[in-house]
Amino acid sequence: MSRRYDQRVTTFSPEGRLYQVEYALEAISHAGACLGILCSDGVVLAAERRNLSKLLDKRGRITRASEKMYEIDNHIGCAVAGITADANALIQKARLFAQRYLYTYNEPVPVEYLVQQIADAKQSYTQFGGLRPYGVSFLFAGWDRHLGYQLYNSDPSGNYGGWKAIAIGQHHAAANSMLRQEYPENPEAMPTMKDGMRLAAKVFAKTIDLSILDVEKLEFTRVCPLDACTNANILFHNVSDEELKSAFEEVKRELAQASGTENT
Amino acid sequence: MSRRYDQRVTTFSPEGRLYQVEYALEAISHAGACLGILCSDGVVLAAERRNLSKLLDKRGRITRASEKMYEIDNHIGCAVAGITADANALIQKARLFAQRYLYTYNEPVPVEYLVQQIADAKQSYTQFGGLRPYGVSFLFAGWDRHLGYQLYNSDPSGNYGGWKAIAIGQHHAAANSMLRQEYPENPEAMPTMKDGMRLAAKVFAKTIDLSILDVEKLEFTRVCPLDACTNANILFHNVSDEELKSAFEEVKRELAQASGTENT
Amino acid sequence: MSRRYDQRVTTFSPEGRLYQVEYALEAISHAGACLGILCSDGVVLAAERRNLSKLLDKRGRITRASEKMYEIDNHIGCAVAGITADANALIQKARLFAQRYLYTYNEPVPVEYLVQQIADAKQSYTQFGGLRPYGVSFLFAGWDRHLGYQLYNSDPSGNYGGWKAIAIGQHHAAANSMLRQEYPENPEAMPTMKDGMRLAAKVFAKTIDLSILDVEKLEFTRVCPLDACTNANILFHNVSDEELKSAFEEVKRELAQASGTENT
Amino acid sequence: MSRRYDQRVTTFSPEGRLYQVEYALEAISHAGACLGILCSDGVVLAAERRNLSKLLDKRGRITRASEKMYEIDNHIGCAVAGITADANALIQKARLFAQRYLYTYNEPVPVEYLVQQIADAKQSYTQFGGLRPYGVSFLFAGWDRHLGYQLYNSDPSGNYGGWKAIAIGQHHAAANSMLRQEYPENPEAMPTMKDGMRLAAKVFAKTIDLSILDVEKLEFTRVCPLDACTNANILFHNVSDEELKSAFEEVKRELAQASGTENT
Amino acid sequence: MSRRYDQRVTTFSPEGRLYQVEYALEAISHAGACLGILCSDGVVLAAERRNLSKLLDKRGRITRASEKMYEIDNHIGCAVAGITADANALIQKARLFAQRYLYTYNEPVPVEYLVQQIADAKQSYTQFGGLRPYGVSFLFAGWDRHLGYQLYNSDPSGNYGGWKAIAIGQHHAAANSMLRQEYPENPEAMPTMKDGMRLAAKVFAKTIDLSILDVEKLEFTRVCPLDACTNANILFHNVSDEELKSAFEEVKRELAQASGTENT
Amino acid sequence: MSRRYDQRVTTFSPEGRLYQVEYALEAISHAGACLGILCSDGVVLAAERRNLSKLLDKRGRITRASEKMYEIDNHIGCAVAGITADANALIQKARLFAQRYLYTYNEPVPVEYLVQQIADAKQSYTQFGGLRPYGVSFLFAGWDRHLGYQLYNSDPSGNYGGWKAIAIGQHHAAANSMLRQEYPENPEAMPTMKDGMRLAAKVFAKTIDLSILDVEKLEFTRVCPLDACTNANILFHNVSDEELKSAFEEVKRELAQASGTENT
Amino acid sequence: MSRRYDQRVTTFSPEGRLYQVEYALEAISHAGACLGILCSDGVVLAAERRNLSKLLDKRGRITRASEKMYEIDNHIGCAVAGITADANALIQKARLFAQRYLYTYNEPVPVEYLVQQIADAKQSYTQFGGLRPYGVSFLFAGWDRHLGYQLYNSDPSGNYGGWKAIAIGQHHAAANSMLRQEYPENPEAMPTMKDGMRLAAKVFAKTIDLSILDVEKLEFTRVCPLDACTNANILFHNVSDEELKSAFEEVKRELAQASGTENT
Repeated sequence: MSRRYDQRVTTFSPEGRLYQVEYALEAISHAGACLGILCSDGVVLAAERRNLSKLLDKRGRITRASEKMYEIDNHIGCAVAGITADANALIQKARLFAQRYLYTYNEPVPVEYLVQQIADAKQSYTQFGGLRPYGVSFLFAGWDRHLGYQLYNSDPSGNYGGWKAIAIGQHHAAANSMLRQEYPENPEAMPTMKDGMRLAAKVFAKTIDLSILDVEKLEFTRVCPLDACTNANILFHNVSDEELKSAFEEVKRELAQASGTENT
Repeated sequence: MSRRYDQRVTTFSPEGRLYQVEYALEAISHAGACLGILCSDGVVLAAERRNLSKLLDKRGRITRASEKMYEIDNHIGCAVAGITADANALIQKARLFAQRYLYTYNEPVPVEYLVQQIADAKQSYTQFGGLRPYGVSFLFAGWDRHLGYQLYNSDPSGNYGGWKAIAIGQHHAAANSMLRQEYPENPEAMPTMKDGMRLAAKVFAKTIDLSILDVEKLEFTRVCPLDACTNANILFHNVSDEELKSAFEEVKRELAQASGTENT
Repeated sequence: MSRRYDQRVTTFSPEGRLYQVEYALEAISHAGACLGILCSDGVVLAAERRNLSKLLDKRGRITRASEKMYEIDNHIGCAVAGITADANALIQKARLFAQRYLYTYNEPVPVEYLVQQIADAKQSYTQFGGLRPYGVSFLFAGWDRHLGYQLYNSDPSGNYGGWKAIAIGQHHAAANSMLRQEYPENPEAMPTMKDGMRLAAKVFAKTIDLSILDVEKLEFTRVCPLDACTNANILFHNVSDEELKSAFEEVKRELAQASGTENT
Repeated sequence: MSRRYDQRVTTFSPEGRLYQVEYALEAISHAGACLGILCSDGVVLAAERRNLSKLLDKRGRITRASEKMYEIDNHIGCAVAGITADANALIQKARLFAQRYLYTYNEPVPVEYLVQQIADAKQSYTQFGGLRPYGVSFLFAGWDRHLGYQLYNSDPSGNYGGWKAIAIGQHHAAANSMLRQEYPENPEAMPTMKDGMRLAAKVFAKTIDLSILDVEKLEFTRVCPLDACTNANILFHNVSDEELKSAFEEVKRELAQASGTENT
Repeated sequence: MSRRYDQRVTTFSPEGRLYQVEYALEAISHAGACLGILCSDGVVLAAERRNLSKLLDKRGRITRASEKMYEIDNHIGCAVAGITADANALIQKARLFAQRYLYTYNEPVPVEYLVQQIADAKQSYTQFGGLRPYGVSFLFAGWDRHLGYQLYNSDPSGNYGGWKAIAIGQHHAAANSMLRQEYPENPEAMPTMKDGMRLAAKVFAKTIDLSILDVEKLEFTRVCPLDACTNANILFHNVSDEELKSAFEEVKRELAQASGTENT
Repeated sequence: MSRRYDQRVTTFSPEGRLYQVEYALEAISHAGACLGILCSDGVVLAAERRNLSKLLDKRGRITRASEKMYEIDNHIGCAVAGITADANALIQKARLFAQRYLYTYNEPVPVEYLVQQIADAKQSYTQFGGLRPYGVSFLFAGWDRHLGYQLYNSDPSGNYGGWKAIAIGQHHAAANSMLRQEYPENPEAMPTMKDGMRLAAKVFAKTIDLSILDVEKLEFTRVCPLDACTNANILFHNVSDEELKSAFEEVKRELAQASGTENT
Repeated sequence: MSRRYDQRVTTFSPEGRLYQVEYALEAISHAGACLGILCSDGVVLAAERRNLSKLLDKRGRITRASEKMYEIDNHIGCAVAGITADANALIQKARLFAQRYLYTYNEPVPVEYLVQQIADAKQSYTQFGGLRPYGVSFLFAGWDRHLGYQLYNSDPSGNYGGWKAIAIGQHHAAANSMLRQEYPENPEAMPTMKDGMRLAAKVFAKTIDLSILDVEKLEFTRVCPLDACTNANILFHNVSDEELKSAFEEVKRELAQASGTENT
């Protein structure tokens, strides 16, 4: 029965649903998982790499090295789940918007303001005829002088929200429920970047597989000072393989202990 | 039979109905409930929070803390039931309109004038091809020097109206009928903000559940002077948790007494 | 069979009918009844209030107090039957047009000229693809220096006409037939405003119910000098509750007598 | 079978027919009859009034007094059969065009030139998608210095033609065949206005009913000097009730004689 | 099977046919016949009049006297088969184009250049969505200083061609085959206007009926000097009734002889 | 099954085919055959005339004399297979483009550059909604100072290519296979114009019929100096009937010998 | 079932798939194979020629000589698999973009920036109504001062990526798996151009057929200094037949040895 209402973005079903938007969400729920965790000293984004071909050329700028992580401005970046080409088109818009804001007001674009622009662009593709929704969800990580470190999600309907920790893509339900258990409730006890990265790794390991803990299969970026010592400018940048490896080792050990404990 | 006329916003059914508008209303009747109550010293808006995830980041400005309450200008705010992304798009328009009015006439936009702009925008989406209606209803609370405190609703058809008290979203029929009984008929006996908040809490408790009376599950905003003592500028702002908690306690006690009385 | 031609405003049926326009008329024939009566000293508009909720906020300007009566300019007003949101959009146009005319020619817009503008707007929505007709009929009451007091109707097809007395909305057939019997044929014997109001009340009482004669359930506006004594400027304004009540009393008495007479 | 080609104005049927245009003509063939007769000293237009309600307000200008007759410029007028709202929209165009011509060239617009503009507007509505044809036919009566008195018809397809006498609307076939018999073939023997009006009355009486000969039921306009004696400017104007009544009397007498003769 | 491809001008059938264009041609093949004959001293156009009503007003300019023949410029005219309203719209374009050319280059538009403009306009209506082809074919007769007298046809597909003699409309196949037999092959032996007119009359008599040879039923125009004696400017003009009658007489006599001969 | 994907130019079938383009190609494969042969001293185009009516007016410029051959600029011409009206529209574009290039750069447009423009115009008609592909293929013959003599084909999909010899239209498969056998492989042994014309004639004779070798039934044009002796400017021009006749004679003799040889 | 969602580019299927994009990919998977290999001293592109007709005119510029390889700027070129006409349209855009960049910034366009422009153009054709996706995939080879030699692919969805080696078109799955085995993993051991060409030849020989190793059937281009000795400017250019032949010989010998070894 629902079939009659699912072919046009501009048609409500009798229950008030927009099927085309739900189908776009369906596409995303099969995409590689992404995780974001807000920390006391930064934001961590992590994503599962699906394309593991050895032939990929990973040199150079962040945009090329990854299908999942994109820098938007120095202080804002995002992780992507869904149709990569749609993501590219929206990220172009976001970059342009960020530069225009900088040029006009001579200060970096506030994170939520940029997120809202992208969300509104998505919403309009769910309301006008002859279009389809953008088949992509984002996790935005950023910093601004108003609210400090921030983490947002944005889905094909044009909805967005601020989160302490969130997962999108495959297994997102399981991952989110695990995040709810593990993320400290007390705002004072907000995890450090180090804890955040370990938490992210643990969630991947539990919802997917222990073997995912591999610098080839997972990608981590963060918004924080490039070098914690100097504590200089806040930047969106990749986590180095060394740091990742040591985090993965810790998580593996911890999980082994836990399972050991369990087995006893 | 009705099926033939329900797929396009630009088609009347033989009985003169616009099914797409009715389907949009259907979507709203499943959304979290919102209540508005006009008081002698302000307007109260209250809304049921559906997204109770502990991971939500509630810091900062009102727009981020809530999916249900939005400030439009200092003196106007609204509660939302329906598709949040659609609401965002319309609220952007409303904010822009309010600022333009202020800039042009150097006085805050009159409440009804702003409501009418939003209502007309909604109406046009029920008459032109290739569009769908906005799937969202609003309660607007505001103050202006012409009519003082005011409360309006606006639905997807483009209809709007001024009310003393009104509920939208789930259980709105039950809530409205309870409001009709409890809201004083005599215009002289208009409730104070304190009474209004208790009335709102009571309606939620009766139409949903006593357990809803929780600062995590209900959100209250109001248009009134920020501090009743100083009686300074009128502002749209959140009700503090403390105030809410004490109001909830009173209502719980009252309801317990009533049920006690009933049981005897 | 007719089904094939009833889904687009731009399609004639084989009998040359435009079904979408007829469906819009169907919507109007279920709306609250409106009556207009041309009098020697003004024009009376009367409308049945459907929304009787005690919670409606009736303060302030005419546009807020009523869903059925709208002022367009000082000297022109209208009663509405049908989809209120559609009416709002057209009334916005009418007000703008009236002010532009005043600004350009420095005299109030002639009544028929304004009516024609609205009618042409409606017609164009019955001829172009991707639109639906406006689902609303109007009664316009006004005064200008060319023709004095005037009364017009306008329906969704774009038709309009000048009348001495006319009813639209529910029971319009019965009401119009009663008006034909009761309205004096002799142009010299045109009723006064007082008679006109009584006639309107009688028609409502007979076609709906005696209980309708209640200032809560019926709304009366008129175009005439605000104060008959001073005979100052002609204005579109509400009839006061006192005046209405006394008129209703008279009509009730008359009808009781008549029914008494009948019963004897 | 024809059903497949009858829902869009932009689709030829396999026999090369445009069904939407034919359906529009169908609508017109049920409309009140109109007659035009070219006379040596003017042009007569006559139309059957369908809306006989005593409540119609017939005061004032020609546009209000009639649903069937419209002045376009001093020297041109028309009678209408079909959808009145469509006619209004086209007549607005015609009036504007006539005034622009006058303004530009400082002489009244030639009759055929104006008729052609209206016909071309109609044609374009039979060729472009998303439109429907205008559901209205016209009889244009006018005078210009090139061709003197002229009479034209124009139908929904965009066709138009010059005629000595023609009928449109209901019974047009019977009326036209009667006109062919009664209108003198010899161009020298062209009827006078008086004869023309009697001929028109006779045609109505025979194709409809003798009782139609009533100043309430038939409406006559003409293009000729307002006062034959003074022979001043040529004007489009109504025929007075007195003149009509005497013409109707004559025709009734004549028909009675004829039937008397027949019966003997 | 063909049914699937015949409702849109923008759809090829699997055999590569454009059915809408073929249906437009079908409409034309039922229209009144038109003939054109290129002569040594001019071009003759002849057309069968279908509307023979005595009530037609034939006074005045060529455009009014005829539904089949139209002057485009002094030196170019055309005969029309098909939907008259479509023809009017195209002829307006052609006249405008001719005047613009004259204004720009200060010389009359070359015949083929104008024909090509009209043909290109027609072609575009067979390629773009939301349109239908023009349902009309033309015969253009003209003279220019490059090629002298010329005769072209143009059909709804946008095709056009130069001809010595050609027939369109009803019976065009029979008429064209007869023209092929009777028109002299030797370019030196090109017929004179007199012969051309007789040939045209003969073709009509044979393909339709002898009774068609009547100045009421056939219409002849030509491009040639208005008066052969003075040999002044070349003009598109009507053939006088006298000339036509004498031509018809000759043809009747000839055909009678022929049939006499045959019968012996 | 394929039926579902063949009605819109903007729809891929599941096998990735564009049926509307294939249907347009189907139309062309029934059109009169065209041949092009690149020679050492020019390019020959040859086409089968389908419209052999004696009544065609072949005077004057190349555009009129032929439905198959069109001059684009002095140094470029083309042969056409398919819908002539579509060809006309594209050739207009090509001529305009060639003149604009000449005006801008003061040198004749390079052949391939012009071909590419036309091909791109065709491609866009296979990708946008509400259009159909151009139903026409071209053979372009031209000369420029970059590559000398050149021969291109262009089909409805927007594809084009450079060829030494190629056939389009009916029997193109057989003709192309014959050309592959007869055209010398060695670039040094490129045929002269004389040989090229004989080869073309032979291909027509073999794939169609010996009787096709008739100056009425075949049309030859070429790009080469008008007069080989003077070797003046390169021009696109017709091959004279005398030259053609003698070439046809030679081919007939040759084929007769060959068949004689065969028979022995 | 999938059939309901596969006819419009703007419709998601319930599983979140865009069938029109998948159908376009299907078209490409039947096209001639293309290979790209990133080498230490350049990039090699290789493509299978499908059109082997001896009549193709291969003179002159690269654009004419090949249906598979296109120069975009001096330093960028591409290989094409899919609909050639679509490729032409996009390559025009790419060339224009490259020249505009050069003109604006006075340096050659960075390779990835250009690839992204083309990818975004493709993406937009998968999201807007009334369009179809571009039915073509590209391999881009280029050099810039930021990242040196680079190799990208781009498919109809708007996706693109950087690769060390990649195959598209027919047999792409087998070819890619072979490339994964043979391409050295160690970035230090990147193949030289010579090795790269041999690898490409081997992949073609194994996935298609040994007989493909023929300068007529395979086409090689590369981005590298034109002459390795002089090591001058980097250019996109064809590999000479001599070089190709010797490479093919080596590969054949190697494969023969391998098969010899195998057989023993």
